[in-house]
Amino acid sequence: MSSIFTKIVNGEIPCHKIAEDDRFLAFLDVMPLVEGHTLVIPKQEVDYIFDLEPDVLADLMKFAQSVAPAIKKAIPCKRLGVTVIGLEVPHAHIHLVPMNVMSDMNFSNPKLRPSQEELAITAEKIRRS
Amino acid sequence: MSSIFTKIVNGEIPCHKIAEDDRFLAFLDVMPLVEGHTLVIPKQEVDYIFDLEPDVLADLMKFAQSVAPAIKKAIPCKRLGVTVIGLEVPHAHIHLVPMNVMSDMNFSNPKLRPSQEELAITAEKIRRS
Repeated sequence: MSSIFTKIVNGEIPCHKIAEDDRFLAFLDVMPLVEGHTLVIPKQEVDYIFDLEPDVLADLMKFAQSVAPAIKKAIPCKRLGVTVIGLEVPHAHIHLVPMNVMSDMNFSNPKLRPSQEELAITAEKIRRS
Repeated sequence: MSSIFTKIVNGEIPCHKIAEDDRFLAFLDVMPLVEGHTLVIPKQEVDYIFDLEPDVLADLMKFAQSVAPAIKKAIPCKRLGVTVIGLEVPHAHIHLVPMNVMSDMNFSNPKLRPSQEELAITAEKIRRS
């Protein structure tokens, strides 16, 4: 069965897209730690990030880097935290988290529950930055 | 003033080295979340990871990937978590954390305080894996 992220890649499940190219996709986490929390994934369904081909991993990181400035500009923060935990969804994904204090990156914190409208506004704000 | 990591790169402060090449260094975190918690840094002193040249960032990630299997083999875990928080030391660094449950990656957890001898044993175990 396809991962939920493959369903997003295939358009079977909608997402609030930030950026996309032929191999990678960035979209808002629907249960963010903070506003602007973004997931960056390879379209290729690989569970463990270090199982990606080294060149694909390298390009995934460059893709994450390319979307970071717009997030940082749209969502005031000190910098973006970067995390790969990978026990949630069996499809490699990088969390980009606008961060002001270390505890913003604590995945035990209660998640926000923004509405679809709020997510759409955040995504639009980032895409326009 | 040089960052503490530049002092480590220059050999002014010792570290428990895992791997090194001309541009990157991996060594044990002296206050690990779990045994085997490793820091991977560019020798170039850049504060914010996304300020690295894209090719350097890409190669840093490949270097982290290259050291990951030995850590995973030496320290039984489900996988390595990958985190860049970057508010602790103003020199970009990737945390590689042997992880069994998501909460292993919670940086609010109390840190371990292994002795130098214990760190040396862990580093040796990883280097031999």
